[in-house]
Amino acid sequence: MSTTDQLPQQVVAAIAAVVGTGPVALHEPSFRGNEWLYLKESLDSTFVSSVGKFVDRFEAELATYTGAKYAVAVVNGAAALHIALKLAGVTAGDEVLIPALTFVATANAVSYCGATPHFVDSSEATLGIDAAKLRDYLTFHSEQRGGYCMNRATGRVIRALVPVHTFGHPVDLDGVMAVAEEFNLVVVEDAAESLGSYYRGQHTGTFGLLGTLSFNGNKTITTGGGGAILTNHPQLARQAKHLTTTAKLPHRWEYRHDEIGYNYRMPNLNAALGCAQLEQLPDLLAAKRELFKRYQTTFELVQGVTLMAEPAQCLSNYWLQTLLLDDEQAELHDQVLVATNDAGYMTRPSWKLMHELAPFMDCPCMELTMAQSLSQRLINIPSSVNVVSAV
Amino acid sequence: MSTTDQLPQQVVAAIAAVVGTGPVALHEPSFRGNEWLYLKESLDSTFVSSVGKFVDRFEAELATYTGAKYAVAVVNGAAALHIALKLAGVTAGDEVLIPALTFVATANAVSYCGATPHFVDSSEATLGIDAAKLRDYLTFHSEQRGGYCMNRATGRVIRALVPVHTFGHPVDLDGVMAVAEEFNLVVVEDAAESLGSYYRGQHTGTFGLLGTLSFNGNKTITTGGGGAILTNHPQLARQAKHLTTTAKLPHRWEYRHDEIGYNYRMPNLNAALGCAQLEQLPDLLAAKRELFKRYQTTFELVQGVTLMAEPAQCLSNYWLQTLLLDDEQAELHDQVLVATNDAGYMTRPSWKLMHELAPFMDCPCMELTMAQSLSQRLINIPSSVNVVSAV
Repeated sequence: MSTTDQLPQQVVAAIAAVVGTGPVALHEPSFRGNEWLYLKESLDSTFVSSVGKFVDRFEAELATYTGAKYAVAVVNGAAALHIALKLAGVTAGDEVLIPALTFVATANAVSYCGATPHFVDSSEATLGIDAAKLRDYLTFHSEQRGGYCMNRATGRVIRALVPVHTFGHPVDLDGVMAVAEEFNLVVVEDAAESLGSYYRGQHTGTFGLLGTLSFNGNKTITTGGGGAILTNHPQLARQAKHLTTTAKLPHRWEYRHDEIGYNYRMPNLNAALGCAQLEQLPDLLAAKRELFKRYQTTFELVQGVTLMAEPAQCLSNYWLQTLLLDDEQAELHDQVLVATNDAGYMTRPSWKLMHELAPFMDCPCMELTMAQSLSQRLINIPSSVNVVSAV
Repeated sequence: MSTTDQLPQQVVAAIAAVVGTGPVALHEPSFRGNEWLYLKESLDSTFVSSVGKFVDRFEAELATYTGAKYAVAVVNGAAALHIALKLAGVTAGDEVLIPALTFVATANAVSYCGATPHFVDSSEATLGIDAAKLRDYLTFHSEQRGGYCMNRATGRVIRALVPVHTFGHPVDLDGVMAVAEEFNLVVVEDAAESLGSYYRGQHTGTFGLLGTLSFNGNKTITTGGGGAILTNHPQLARQAKHLTTTAKLPHRWEYRHDEIGYNYRMPNLNAALGCAQLEQLPDLLAAKRELFKRYQTTFELVQGVTLMAEPAQCLSNYWLQTLLLDDEQAELHDQVLVATNDAGYMTRPSWKLMHELAPFMDCPCMELTMAQSLSQRLINIPSSVNVVSAV
């Protein structure tokens, strides 16, 4: 048996050495603070729905934590991105640049606006948009017309650029923001996975015109289901609140709505959970970093695989711990998935690349060498803080 | 002072005699059962999000309660209607008949499909679609072509008909279903307000191809935010679950999505609340009926105003108690609103009619005499079960 053939079992052993005997989930929430207290408070107040102090408090505390001037709590990350894109000016017939390597919600949100996703390659260092490659691509394939970036091939306006901070690792924001400025693209950051992740000391999701967060059950903190829109612009924040609350105009009793709005507000019950979770966030982040260090120790001894570390000058939340097989080991990708899952350790590959999914197969895309390579080599391994005994 | 001038204060007195001294809200939830227990169980299980036993249980119990073969729990009533309309075949460019007298979510959901709402008049007896008037209108303004109902004026397909059971009072379903059959319209029932309401012994929301419910905080039972899709068709139920859970194909680890889906699933945390609330529903309905009877006693003595009673052969949930001023008293409508709200009793008029809202002003509509009359005479009065001491 060659060394290579042993890789799947070596990965199993390296995981087992950190998380103990299985079964171990990919990512479980941790409720060790005031979750129960606040839920009870919400229930006892009878304010469980769209109005209530926990929504206001959660929004204020999210703003404080991220450094965004405003945060608007909504029902999930996809809803947050849908509204953020609308507020960024994305309309029917536009194109929006997004990474091919992302969760489907990014592409869906573009579609909800009647726009077309346009897929961009990723960098191995960040797993996010490769800014240099995007600049080369746009230089060749787009032209500026009347202040807009036009896709030469389709004739459509490329309105916006959506960097995704994959698994919590910040994108090269200096590079991405420079490309956006150069080509007149509005930046909406999909920070669904990166609460607690910083780029040069600034929280992800606060670089673009708008940013979005997710608090789904598998995220670093959860509200059951939930999301938020971040922005520094008071007018955009007001519009975000308006659009996500059925666009109802304030009045003592009148029900008048001035545009087509959405029922995207976060219920107070879910915000109560969020407030308690946010209090726990520093401890959760410390535990996730500790988990990374423990994996680092065991995976140092496994040849042919790299544990993904935070990019330079970044602090990552280490939402999902990520292995990258060497190119030469890519053929063992599925065997590693089978061996680990068979051993009771839930692992998973990257999402199917967006341009490979039926609804997006005909969308424009650049050449996606690295995204394709990453999708053949990438494996997420158990990432719950619960497996770190210190927490 | 004439009798007429005294109406606002007479209404205040009639409300006060039933609900006591204010302030009294329009509709508050009541949590007197296992709400606390189930929420804690959901939290302790750590399954607060998209997977968990309370979602399955809530769906099964909703199906049992309503008599629908299938119920799919979603994030709110607007999301339920959006997906139900899609599954009914509503696509971009279609028209959908909906009452002008409804909450804006009905019209918004049509817009989310890229379709155009087409507004229909209401009947005074039910506050819902006037079937006879609709038949006359369609006879003149539509034609059948290739099995489709075409709007003669716009040339668009009128695909579906959405009866709304306003404030819980069932529509004339015999009449509405007959018109739908005659004109080849798919029926999707908006039963957002009518959980616990029956037409000839059959639960509302189970007559159409699909029906939708809402569990918003102001509804008869609440999940914080939530809704459900009802149907008797297994294939539609499967598609509803698929579309509301990002259209992900089942796989041990792969993330493949075969169409543009939505993150519309109800979190387990909210379903836990729903399970407890559903247990309370019979008591809540009894209390709402008792409240109606008490109002009946006090409003019998007030001339010029009628308390809305359930239509013949119907059981209404009496979600929102409703006053209708006589035509001659319509001019006192705003004075009654002011007097009651000033006295601490939250009352409100009907929603602004849909064709009067900016986003829908250019949509097709029939002549809306009764809807306009109702909107000038209708007032909802405090309807919480909490004001009935017996509960």
